Amino acid sequence: MTKINKAACIGGGVIGGGWIARFLLAGIDVDVYDPHPEATRIVGEVLANAEKAYAMLTGAPLPPRGRLTFRDTLEAAVDGADWIQESVPERLDLKRKVLTQIDAAARSDALIGSSTSGLLPTDLQRDMRHPERLFVAHPYNPVYLLPLVEIVGGEKTSAATIQAAMKRLPPIGMKGVHIAKEIEAFVGDRLLEALWREALWLIKDDICTVETLDDVIRYSFGLRWAQMGLFQTYRIAGGEAGMRHFLAQFGPALQWNWTKLMDVVDLDDALVEKIGQQSDEQADGLSIRELERIRDENLVGILQSLKGSHGGKGWGAGKLLKEFEQHLWAGGGAKQALDLTKPLRLIDTKVSPAWVDYNGHMTEHRYLQVFGDTSDALLRLIGVDLAYVERGHSYYTVETHIRHIGEARLGQAIHSTCQIVGADEKRLHVFHALHDSASGDIIATAEQMLLHVDAKAGKAAAAPEEVLSKLEPIAAAHAALAMPEGAGRHVGQKR
Amino acid sequence: MTKINKAACIGGGVIGGGWIARFLLAGIDVDVYDPHPEATRIVGEVLANAEKAYAMLTGAPLPPRGRLTFRDTLEAAVDGADWIQESVPERLDLKRKVLTQIDAAARSDALIGSSTSGLLPTDLQRDMRHPERLFVAHPYNPVYLLPLVEIVGGEKTSAATIQAAMKRLPPIGMKGVHIAKEIEAFVGDRLLEALWREALWLIKDDICTVETLDDVIRYSFGLRWAQMGLFQTYRIAGGEAGMRHFLAQFGPALQWNWTKLMDVVDLDDALVEKIGQQSDEQADGLSIRELERIRDENLVGILQSLKGSHGGKGWGAGKLLKEFEQHLWAGGGAKQALDLTKPLRLIDTKVSPAWVDYNGHMTEHRYLQVFGDTSDALLRLIGVDLAYVERGHSYYTVETHIRHIGEARLGQAIHSTCQIVGADEKRLHVFHALHDSASGDIIATAEQMLLHVDAKAGKAAAAPEEVLSKLEPIAAAHAALAMPEGAGRHVGQKR
Repeated sequence: MTKINKAACIGGGVIGGGWIARFLLAGIDVDVYDPHPEATRIVGEVLANAEKAYAMLTGAPLPPRGRLTFRDTLEAAVDGADWIQESVPERLDLKRKVLTQIDAAARSDALIGSSTSGLLPTDLQRDMRHPERLFVAHPYNPVYLLPLVEIVGGEKTSAATIQAAMKRLPPIGMKGVHIAKEIEAFVGDRLLEALWREALWLIKDDICTVETLDDVIRYSFGLRWAQMGLFQTYRIAGGEAGMRHFLAQFGPALQWNWTKLMDVVDLDDALVEKIGQQSDEQADGLSIRELERIRDENLVGILQSLKGSHGGKGWGAGKLLKEFEQHLWAGGGAKQALDLTKPLRLIDTKVSPAWVDYNGHMTEHRYLQVFGDTSDALLRLIGVDLAYVERGHSYYTVETHIRHIGEARLGQAIHSTCQIVGADEKRLHVFHALHDSASGDIIATAEQMLLHVDAKAGKAAAAPEEVLSKLEPIAAAHAALAMPEGAGRHVGQKR
Repeated sequence: MTKINKAACIGGGVIGGGWIARFLLAGIDVDVYDPHPEATRIVGEVLANAEKAYAMLTGAPLPPRGRLTFRDTLEAAVDGADWIQESVPERLDLKRKVLTQIDAAARSDALIGSSTSGLLPTDLQRDMRHPERLFVAHPYNPVYLLPLVEIVGGEKTSAATIQAAMKRLPPIGMKGVHIAKEIEAFVGDRLLEALWREALWLIKDDICTVETLDDVIRYSFGLRWAQMGLFQTYRIAGGEAGMRHFLAQFGPALQWNWTKLMDVVDLDDALVEKIGQQSDEQADGLSIRELERIRDENLVGILQSLKGSHGGKGWGAGKLLKEFEQHLWAGGGAKQALDLTKPLRLIDTKVSPAWVDYNGHMTEHRYLQVFGDTSDALLRLIGVDLAYVERGHSYYTVETHIRHIGEARLGQAIHSTCQIVGADEKRLHVFHALHDSASGDIIATAEQMLLHVDAKAGKAAAAPEEVLSKLEPIAAAHAALAMPEGAGRHVGQKR
């Protein structure tokens, strides 16, 4: 993987803001230029959404967030950047002007991506002095969660530029897809546009409402497409005879006289108003902010479920998330000095919507999820990370005792602390507490026994010196602390 | 919810087989007529897939499977059925002939649904004596997992028929969507057809390969559409100004000269072969059976993640799954007398893709999820269900002790048992075990103390007689059982 060192974002709307969040959360400094008076607010809101989503998306350690700087001029923003992303409004003349300015001010080896959703790179690069470094990098909203970037070169774009651009996307959790030939709207928007025109006819002709149409998608082929797309799905539909059989069956329908497909609807005021009203009804009182939150939560859930698919190897966007997490683990997150005079504060998070029951209380097993993350964080501190596990050794939890003292509620800021109460070369005995971050009060505790194992042999084994040398100083310091209240309890023991 | 008593399926291919599985797994007897020599094999394979998927999909108790009977004549199959589903090949003359036969043999009040993906119900019902009971019920493959059914009436279909059909779908876990006006291909296939034609051009013109096109979908808008569809997604894209703003921005693009959208590709031998070859490459050696398994696993994971969304209320197809499970719980599964001579077997499930880590092992907190579900199942047995909780009382877990003895792996069949080891009017002390269903071996145990609480007052309170009278006979019988090995342990205690 090749990392971007400094990014510049020209234009900070919803799409530009999404790119900014992607870069910052991957630890990359970003300079922004956007003369819009509301740019700071909009970017701030997108970034806040992105941070909430990432907190739910992954337990892997995010690197220290990159530095965000708003600049007064385009030239100041692009100075020193090795990836410059243009996300200004969709007008050829405006984009050409902005790209010419970028061209003049950027490092000669900088990659210059345009977020255009339809303009041809050949048209965009016409007036540039160094057009070989310009390419389309077309993302999808929300940019911080949806991984796709369509990479499209123009006539003057060099092959080296395309290769370099493709390599820089995985370290920010994105999937570059190289579109071989440039056409207006590339691939994704071509497909969307075709479906969109048909959808507009269905609404205009009162075949159904926007809510019914959305239900038709999300209760059927939307579920298929989130994981396999169009052709792979039809390959299965063809059965054992496969794709050619499916096409032979399906071919004749293409010639049927469904004329609406061949005509363009007039999106006049009446149709706009009709869709607007139906959309209001569908939203059922949910604000855009609430819908965004629900969307992000759903996307996180889908990505996480795909991460566990295909025998744990991950599938599609879930496989990509898995690879991104491996990259994050390898990076190791923020490095900080440890305060050994008290239990270690290891996890800071908020109770996410996916963690609560219908009453807004954190679900029972999510407590153990946070405590498990706390153990994982401790293990990383002593060098037991993914690379260590892949070499064949690990710590396994053999026993856990949880006490519920209070309740965690939706949105509440919580953090966990960990005290080592015993350790030898095989065993690691810890006592975690989950705190309300506002008051510091303990909401729940978990006492755990972990055992160092040789995973291949399937049995306990002494941890090596490289691990014990990191564990022992913490254990020794914690030995001076009082035994936590509640340690050593069995279920039902009198207080 | 209104339940179907007996279903008849005329045609048992992939779609007919999917309907058969839906009915059988919802506890409905199905008679099948299909003269195809391979019908029994095909239905058997679809049913096997469906059973695997349901085992991962839900821990709610499925009713006893309906009785499946293959009949030698159409008349014998439809005899006594109150829902008859026609899924024969997509030819108007054939469908008319079959529907006329059904019409003559069926009960006068039977509902007759056609699985046609494009023919008009008015054309289908032309020759029927009782055309008012014929409607299109168009499902999506795999029918046993995708919930959508487009319900479309013809000119002679009665409003009562549409209403009755819509009511009978939720008890089999499906979502009926009533399409107000009949048009060829209804709504879903109209949208699919539009996108499909554009996709074929993109492949024919070598803009991209089928794999790239599928990646474009599944790394971007496929993820959006699985949960929100088209219009709700664009409502968000419009930002605070909403749908009307989005349309005003987007409108002009509709008139752009993307001519391919307006032309029909010739699906000739060369194009069929090109797509066939690219599809073979994309599949990367995975057979149709393997792709089906991965697809089902992914769909289960997506449905489960959507079930937990929106503050635990569920969203879209996940909300529907939640409602289906509530229906299953209310049904109580196979009504069986409790065997009180041993621990109660309460949860039977398989380790789902969403539950495993990158090694395919069940994640730590998912053990507690299954144990929590086990406690919930016990509570329902003693009358502490959702309605009880909503009246203001409940049992809260105050303490849990988990031991890990073995490991649960992706796809493994597991079940939990529960022994009551102590109970009084406030306290309920249980010992759960998680077993490998093949060997019966214990994989993990959880000892829990639950406390009956007055949720409003926020303190412990004695359970009422209605609960205690159900709890006491189980507790009394379990008092005769040996105390389970491992009960009363504290963390780190010597064995």
